[in-house]
Amino acid sequence: MNYEDWVKEKLEDLSKSLGFKYTPEEELTDRLARLRSGMKKKGIEALLVVQKMDYYYLSGTTQDGILFVPLEGKPLLMVRRELERATLESSLEEVVGIKSIRELPSLIHNHWGRLPKTLGLELDVLPVNEYFKYEGLFQGARLMDASLVIRDTRKIKSLFEIHLMRMAGEIGRKVYQKGREILKEGMTEIEFGGLLEAAAKMFGHEGLLRVRSLNYEAYTWHVLSGSSGGIVSQSDSPMGGLGLSPAFPVGASLKVMRAHEPILVDFGTCYHGYQADETRMFSIGEMTEKFLDAYKVCREIHDAVLEETRPGADCEAIFRNTLQLAEKLGYKDRYLGPPGLQTRFIGHGIGLELNEFPFLAQGHSYPLEEGMSFAVEPKIIFPGEGSVGFENTVVVTQDGYDILTPLEQDIFKV
Amino acid sequence: MNYEDWVKEKLEDLSKSLGFKYTPEEELTDRLARLRSGMKKKGIEALLVVQKMDYYYLSGTTQDGILFVPLEGKPLLMVRRELERATLESSLEEVVGIKSIRELPSLIHNHWGRLPKTLGLELDVLPVNEYFKYEGLFQGARLMDASLVIRDTRKIKSLFEIHLMRMAGEIGRKVYQKGREILKEGMTEIEFGGLLEAAAKMFGHEGLLRVRSLNYEAYTWHVLSGSSGGIVSQSDSPMGGLGLSPAFPVGASLKVMRAHEPILVDFGTCYHGYQADETRMFSIGEMTEKFLDAYKVCREIHDAVLEETRPGADCEAIFRNTLQLAEKLGYKDRYLGPPGLQTRFIGHGIGLELNEFPFLAQGHSYPLEEGMSFAVEPKIIFPGEGSVGFENTVVVTQDGYDILTPLEQDIFKV
Repeated sequence: MNYEDWVKEKLEDLSKSLGFKYTPEEELTDRLARLRSGMKKKGIEALLVVQKMDYYYLSGTTQDGILFVPLEGKPLLMVRRELERATLESSLEEVVGIKSIRELPSLIHNHWGRLPKTLGLELDVLPVNEYFKYEGLFQGARLMDASLVIRDTRKIKSLFEIHLMRMAGEIGRKVYQKGREILKEGMTEIEFGGLLEAAAKMFGHEGLLRVRSLNYEAYTWHVLSGSSGGIVSQSDSPMGGLGLSPAFPVGASLKVMRAHEPILVDFGTCYHGYQADETRMFSIGEMTEKFLDAYKVCREIHDAVLEETRPGADCEAIFRNTLQLAEKLGYKDRYLGPPGLQTRFIGHGIGLELNEFPFLAQGHSYPLEEGMSFAVEPKIIFPGEGSVGFENTVVVTQDGYDILTPLEQDIFKV
Repeated sequence: MNYEDWVKEKLEDLSKSLGFKYTPEEELTDRLARLRSGMKKKGIEALLVVQKMDYYYLSGTTQDGILFVPLEGKPLLMVRRELERATLESSLEEVVGIKSIRELPSLIHNHWGRLPKTLGLELDVLPVNEYFKYEGLFQGARLMDASLVIRDTRKIKSLFEIHLMRMAGEIGRKVYQKGREILKEGMTEIEFGGLLEAAAKMFGHEGLLRVRSLNYEAYTWHVLSGSSGGIVSQSDSPMGGLGLSPAFPVGASLKVMRAHEPILVDFGTCYHGYQADETRMFSIGEMTEKFLDAYKVCREIHDAVLEETRPGADCEAIFRNTLQLAEKLGYKDRYLGPPGLQTRFIGHGIGLELNEFPFLAQGHSYPLEEGMSFAVEPKIIFPGEGSVGFENTVVVTQDGYDILTPLEQDIFKV
């Protein structure tokens, strides 16, 4: 069998075993229509999409390449590596090989009849040197920032996407249940985190979590026990933990886990690129009352957020209401971080990336819409002692919400 | 105990348990001196360093911030989150808090007495929108690309860095040995990969691997058995494997591993940010002769590369010599990829990132220097059947090389 036939057969086997064949054509068509409505409003005549998750969203493949999306006419997928596989994975009609981006203008001209006068790029993530190259290649075009147009399209999830997030949530459910079998007193945080991750992979988790940022790195092993839970680090998160070194100063550390400590496990899972994010508390024996009380407060704040979750609700108002509630319940100074280092968000949009729209956060006054998905994660910190938290991923429905992480809500006590 | 004291105590405990206190001051001083010699040559009066690994290399911390490095005078570390921790981790003298990059000009002016006329930035990775912000903030300055100056500084490793890479290599050694206990017929690739990763974390691996790129994602679970080993994917690598979905179409898959198949395990490890990369073959029972023969050829090519490794040897010539050797040994069409999809490198620089200088590759004609470190990885592919490979990480010494991945070289047969 030659290489091409063999790849095709293998990929078809894989798609069968996964239960469906990649991103359906109608899904891409719908995304494209919504994207184009945003492009039209901004006066963007064509897009070059290069960032992996935007590119996957609009093409169905992550094979290395560049996607040209004109306002009118067919998109053109130009693939560096590997063309055969991209052709199988993407249901776009026009897929060609490309060796160098210098070929872009001629490929686009051949495909579209001319070159665009306005060209949208993902300027929030595109490296400057690549931008200069595009500037040189498309001298007749005004280069514009299309990142918000793409992110706005991506913020509304289809039923297909919600299905994949639900699958990720289902993997998460199994991981936490497995955690109950794994956790033993005397284990280090990183040992527990590593075993949870291995279990997640067994259940279908793809391994990586993704965040749209030059420097922000997502990871699954956010296991913080006792005093580790009270420490802040580089990320805009209520607590970062100790981590393993100054090069990776977040998440699980070499700290040994002990009975009666709060053990916070904030674990993300990924299925076909779509992520679910959740937090539950573990403990070996009963946690002390202080932490149990604070955990109840996290649950209460979480429930209050969901109570307000429906199309039209203002994201910033939801966040601000939780500040009031935390204050009323006596946790003003411990809510979302230690005093002076408190974060200013209670929820983050989630899908292919962990920092999608909407943000339930300060400065984000816009309405929730049907199809938006976000993780809601109240956390309470006792510096030097530990932290507790609770988190689910939800999708906004026509008249409320649906939880995509259907995991039992109680503390996982072993 | 208040938060600041507690953080300090915890971090000091951590540093003790790790055996040393972060990046020593003399190390930073030496790096800075070499960096400045490059800046001077390029006419760059000051740098703003933002990319996490460049920033860590020059400051000793990865707490979120921006590093100002003038050609003369002290560097200024400006930290968004978390200042207390950055102050402890970095041995730089001048560390201040910053809330917004709008404060940059005034902070720099206060610190340095004026603003720079030429300002170097990491234009190979810096997002365009951030660049535009710096352009607005430093209107009197010419912005220049400093990425090669920084990467050229980083390509020569100190004894301290080599020590950390050796520690990473030692973790790798334990991981492969553990692999012999873990591997069982009937396991899936991803199950094996996940368990190797959990073991690596137990032994001190930090979890993430890093690569300097917008889209290229590094991962450890590159376990390719039998037919999986013959398939190419998005990355510039001889083979990518099936992966788990079109969103992550590389590395270990759901394929069940069988006796007598070649099982290629390309596993990177990371310690204090420093990486080691290695590949060994596993098999359940004996591999068939075809793969055993090809494996011997990989060993032979690997040894031939090391035979040539010394200061002054030309990187491209070393690569080209392996092409000749592979052809002479009868593997011309299977060496480094399937026909038509063969990659053009036999080695990649490694340290804080997996794609550092030098590249032993086509188009990279420059001499090896003492202190350069790279991974050498001959691989041979049989499309539809499987692949074999062999890889070690080495450092160039005064008159040759030293292997940083001192793992037994034979096939791990279980």
